[in-house]
Amino acid sequence: MLPDTRRQLMAVSTATLCTALFKRGLRHQFIQNVRPLNPALPNMVGPAYTLRYMPAREDLNGIAVFTDRAHPQRKAVEECPAGAVLVIDSRQDARAASAGGILVSRLMVRGVAGVVTDGGFRDSPDIARLAIPAYHQRPSAPTNLTLHQAIGINEPIGCGDTPVFPGDIVVGDAEGVVVIPAHLADEIAAEATEMTVFEDYVQEQVLAGRSVLGLYPPTDADVAGHFARWRAAAGR
Amino acid sequence: MLPDTRRQLMAVSTATLCTALFKRGLRHQFIQNVRPLNPALPNMVGPAYTLRYMPAREDLNGIAVFTDRAHPQRKAVEECPAGAVLVIDSRQDARAASAGGILVSRLMVRGVAGVVTDGGFRDSPDIARLAIPAYHQRPSAPTNLTLHQAIGINEPIGCGDTPVFPGDIVVGDAEGVVVIPAHLADEIAAEATEMTVFEDYVQEQVLAGRSVLGLYPPTDADVAGHFARWRAAAGR
Amino acid sequence: MLPDTRRQLMAVSTATLCTALFKRGLRHQFIQNVRPLNPALPNMVGPAYTLRYMPAREDLNGIAVFTDRAHPQRKAVEECPAGAVLVIDSRQDARAASAGGILVSRLMVRGVAGVVTDGGFRDSPDIARLAIPAYHQRPSAPTNLTLHQAIGINEPIGCGDTPVFPGDIVVGDAEGVVVIPAHLADEIAAEATEMTVFEDYVQEQVLAGRSVLGLYPPTDADVAGHFARWRAAAGR
Amino acid sequence: MLPDTRRQLMAVSTATLCTALFKRGLRHQFIQNVRPLNPALPNMVGPAYTLRYMPAREDLNGIAVFTDRAHPQRKAVEECPAGAVLVIDSRQDARAASAGGILVSRLMVRGVAGVVTDGGFRDSPDIARLAIPAYHQRPSAPTNLTLHQAIGINEPIGCGDTPVFPGDIVVGDAEGVVVIPAHLADEIAAEATEMTVFEDYVQEQVLAGRSVLGLYPPTDADVAGHFARWRAAAGR
Amino acid sequence: MLPDTRRQLMAVSTATLCTALFKRGLRHQFIQNVRPLNPALPNMVGPAYTLRYMPAREDLNGIAVFTDRAHPQRKAVEECPAGAVLVIDSRQDARAASAGGILVSRLMVRGVAGVVTDGGFRDSPDIARLAIPAYHQRPSAPTNLTLHQAIGINEPIGCGDTPVFPGDIVVGDAEGVVVIPAHLADEIAAEATEMTVFEDYVQEQVLAGRSVLGLYPPTDADVAGHFARWRAAAGR
Amino acid sequence: MLPDTRRQLMAVSTATLCTALFKRGLRHQFIQNVRPLNPALPNMVGPAYTLRYMPAREDLNGIAVFTDRAHPQRKAVEECPAGAVLVIDSRQDARAASAGGILVSRLMVRGVAGVVTDGGFRDSPDIARLAIPAYHQRPSAPTNLTLHQAIGINEPIGCGDTPVFPGDIVVGDAEGVVVIPAHLADEIAAEATEMTVFEDYVQEQVLAGRSVLGLYPPTDADVAGHFARWRAAAGR
Repeated sequence: MLPDTRRQLMAVSTATLCTALFKRGLRHQFIQNVRPLNPALPNMVGPAYTLRYMPAREDLNGIAVFTDRAHPQRKAVEECPAGAVLVIDSRQDARAASAGGILVSRLMVRGVAGVVTDGGFRDSPDIARLAIPAYHQRPSAPTNLTLHQAIGINEPIGCGDTPVFPGDIVVGDAEGVVVIPAHLADEIAAEATEMTVFEDYVQEQVLAGRSVLGLYPPTDADVAGHFARWRAAAGR
Repeated sequence: MLPDTRRQLMAVSTATLCTALFKRGLRHQFIQNVRPLNPALPNMVGPAYTLRYMPAREDLNGIAVFTDRAHPQRKAVEECPAGAVLVIDSRQDARAASAGGILVSRLMVRGVAGVVTDGGFRDSPDIARLAIPAYHQRPSAPTNLTLHQAIGINEPIGCGDTPVFPGDIVVGDAEGVVVIPAHLADEIAAEATEMTVFEDYVQEQVLAGRSVLGLYPPTDADVAGHFARWRAAAGR
Repeated sequence: MLPDTRRQLMAVSTATLCTALFKRGLRHQFIQNVRPLNPALPNMVGPAYTLRYMPAREDLNGIAVFTDRAHPQRKAVEECPAGAVLVIDSRQDARAASAGGILVSRLMVRGVAGVVTDGGFRDSPDIARLAIPAYHQRPSAPTNLTLHQAIGINEPIGCGDTPVFPGDIVVGDAEGVVVIPAHLADEIAAEATEMTVFEDYVQEQVLAGRSVLGLYPPTDADVAGHFARWRAAAGR
Repeated sequence: MLPDTRRQLMAVSTATLCTALFKRGLRHQFIQNVRPLNPALPNMVGPAYTLRYMPAREDLNGIAVFTDRAHPQRKAVEECPAGAVLVIDSRQDARAASAGGILVSRLMVRGVAGVVTDGGFRDSPDIARLAIPAYHQRPSAPTNLTLHQAIGINEPIGCGDTPVFPGDIVVGDAEGVVVIPAHLADEIAAEATEMTVFEDYVQEQVLAGRSVLGLYPPTDADVAGHFARWRAAAGR
Repeated sequence: MLPDTRRQLMAVSTATLCTALFKRGLRHQFIQNVRPLNPALPNMVGPAYTLRYMPAREDLNGIAVFTDRAHPQRKAVEECPAGAVLVIDSRQDARAASAGGILVSRLMVRGVAGVVTDGGFRDSPDIARLAIPAYHQRPSAPTNLTLHQAIGINEPIGCGDTPVFPGDIVVGDAEGVVVIPAHLADEIAAEATEMTVFEDYVQEQVLAGRSVLGLYPPTDADVAGHFARWRAAAGR
Repeated sequence: MLPDTRRQLMAVSTATLCTALFKRGLRHQFIQNVRPLNPALPNMVGPAYTLRYMPAREDLNGIAVFTDRAHPQRKAVEECPAGAVLVIDSRQDARAASAGGILVSRLMVRGVAGVVTDGGFRDSPDIARLAIPAYHQRPSAPTNLTLHQAIGINEPIGCGDTPVFPGDIVVGDAEGVVVIPAHLADEIAAEATEMTVFEDYVQEQVLAGRSVLGLYPPTDADVAGHFARWRAAAGR
């Protein structure tokens, strides 16, 4: 990831990123059915660090398992790098929690950029008040031991029907979360930044009364020049 | 639609309208599983203008299709009449967007009364800040080309398991959206207005401590007279 | 329920209660897929009083059935004891309402502690403004007669895949609702109160930068003493 | 039920019965999503005797509960009258069994007319070889104690989204199961028998090459007379 | 469709056709979740002729609507060309039937090549004994009027999440149904025929003990020559 | 696994095994929603060898990937030990295939004991005619590349909501598939064998007219002795 890429990704939307990915034939990079616990936070941007859950077998998931310092859930929370996003494969099952307020607090304090599960968080009202972006399907109070056993760290996983490889760049906004393949992150960030300038122009024109026909996409002959002047004036 | 009908429908709830429809044997007129992006807006009222999506075939849905000014999605946005509600049949599939912020802005500027999809909108945080009522299942960042192809304009459709005929009167409030068959709109609006006066009375009585038994429905002998006096005093 | 139990349950989270229940082998006590209409209210605490719906048969569920003062829905609303929580088995079907604003207002005025359905409420924007905690799956404007017939009062039921026996202690917070078997309520309340003190301590330590390893659970030798001093200082 | 009604219902289809019910405004009497374990058996006909399951609480559903001779599941199996159909409300949850081969064998030996669950049976390959009609959603090996607790006998219930009152007449064929309100059984049986004669005539005409237009329904002037002659010749 | 194409498509599998379509970027052409009523019939092959259902509004779908000879359901059955496949968009809703035995018999007699719905058929045991291939989700006894209103004939539709345009070539086997865009049918049929010869060879080799590595796909140097000799010997 | 264990497991049902597991607190060992392609085959018994799929990313899953001899799907098929059962985690997604007829044939020839996916197989009619037990959710013609990427071999996985560890003993019958933790296999096999003898006795008694009360479970005083004599006579 180029130094500018993170900065750029903080300022574009997941919708714009999805379009840039779609142009490259990637149609499944938006994590289905997750939402931000606090939609007022800035964008979440960082490379994926993953945690995989399997269904819990009762004899292996008593409350005592967490006394093991090497338990994968606790290990993932302590080892997820600062600046990364912890992405959890909970098999889209929100009947028990993927993690709770204390672990998410620890991630925040450690400088982790955000956390995503396709299941649910417990202590969700507390997490919603933290300064770390967190995304889930719905609140879920039962301890993860009820249904989930952490089994794999930093493997390729699925999250919300999206493929996630460690190091992929994960971006979240108030709408949801998109996963950008690592090798495309710089070019997608640059392209989305350009697209955003044009979309802001279009939005302004539309609010001023112009039709979308010929403007979006810009097939009318006058749009390119008008946009160039608008852009220059706006200093973007 | 009589001149008064729109005014009346701005002041009643979808719940009351559903009851009036139920009395006429219509049980499926509430669009299932959609919610307002901005629940603080006034009611949405207008005749239905419809757009039907079919599943997208990849070779027909490249990014270039929107350069066609006659593309049904864009055409629907430019031709939906002022005062109407654009109702989109997205087959209840929110894995890709039905439309985004720019198109919804254009609808707003054109004076369209609202927009409903049984799928999802992209740019949903932006749409939530617009002054046009919009209803969907959940946010969805991927472009509609990913899964949806606009194929039919102003046909009878289904939306959230509800039958929608062009010209049916669509009403939305903070709870959801109901579809009133066109020929019933005036009488339903009038009846719901009367029902609302009585429900407001009942609600006030209940908050003052009266039992619902005998009051709602008003089987006790004293209710009719007491309500008449309350109504007169309230000038309704 | 001991006099202190209600007070204790007002001050603990459903997440903590789920863990205490999990330790006793109870894994299905969190009502799946319900949320508070007003998440800003204090906890909901009270013994369960139940209402069971079956699918509505059309000839038995005309609008006139509510003129019967003994109709189970109305009867339940009038007879649910003050301080209790009305728990409704709607078969997880939110396509029609379980109840509406007037009935929930009546419950509030009667001193009922809260109301839960695994279906949906109508008049949900109104209910969200009442001072009584209410939990449901999603808003649903159609009258309950459309799909639900009230058939049993204060029977053992299921609600959101959770077993609910009359008299079980129901606790709701901003995350959701948990059902505590009656005979365990006092010990669970006491244990959860103790757990909450420790979790508050842990949360404070984590925000101050301490790792969760060795702290949560407290396997490091120094934690017990440090916690005891913290607790004494905090007067808890 | 008149003496002839059972005989008539043995010879008509659930499809024809659904149409007769539809004509009376009853649209939800076909049990959704159940199929016969042995589709080669004759029709199942009998009055409903019901069993209701609630979600199992672990401390109440150890393997020892069946040593209680009054356990509702065992009691229902021993008390369901000969000639009746045992209809089980399993909340459409087939993750654990509703009953198994031994209990269904006992029902058969006792002369019970059939058994229906909207969940699943265990020992389903064995049950499929018995001479008693049985209908379920899908096979399910786990004991019912895993998820289901039998709690109510011969109450009104829901089964596959259909209302079932004790004494309603239950009819199953190779397609599925329909529930006829008790008071309508005789007239529905008679009407369906007449409809079946006409449908057999129509089917024969259609296979011989006649269009359905004007024939089904019989709006062409010649159909009534031709059918009357066909019927007389067929001795029906 | 070239004269040979139908013959070729009678002899290949839907699995092979899906692979040929996948190579061209078409990933959604297999109709999801339908199965043959009689899996022993030969392949179904023919151009699509479509029928679209919308949700039924009660006042428009009384039993008398079929007295109208122009009712779209009946019209579609009488006008679907011989050799074509009638494909029905039932919105994947099998709670009521898409059609029944008499209409499917009429289609058969008229020489229609097959019928597909993403809902369910009624009289399914009868249809399973007819010589016309029919595919659905599951049996469904209630008349289509209960939930479906036929509204559009030979429009582009969705069926089981697959886009279907009139004239697309529809192929069914014992596994399911695939939709081939019309302009690709000849080349896909030819390619799939070639693929089938090779797959038959591979299958024979595998059953004789050869590893799939190097054989399937044929990256080992010896495979091409060996296959050529096998093919010559087999006369294919 | 003791030498006798496989033999014992060939002769007991998944239902009986589920009960033995339930007695040990294991409630999630029955793979949900899979069925045998050929229910007439003998039991499937063997240690689990696993394959994990993640969602497919389009740029990594072109048709050419199978030219790589190390592709995990092909590698798993060539390396799964004789006598083992290949268990595939397809995330319960049957919209594309997990494997097809050629690979399953290869598994059979290699002596693999069976194959299970919680997705679907393609070429399912062919697989149903093979002598190897195979279990899936439903037929699915699209190549696995459409939605699945094989990513992990012989890791702990989930399959149909069941935890599966490599080496767990997998047993399938005509009802479905159960997973026995490796360390319990011998004792569960022995216990289930004993249970089966008693259940056969009970079934015979029930068919002869005896009530289940007191017999199943055997709380009546006479059962033990009678069963002992029956068993001796039967030589079991």
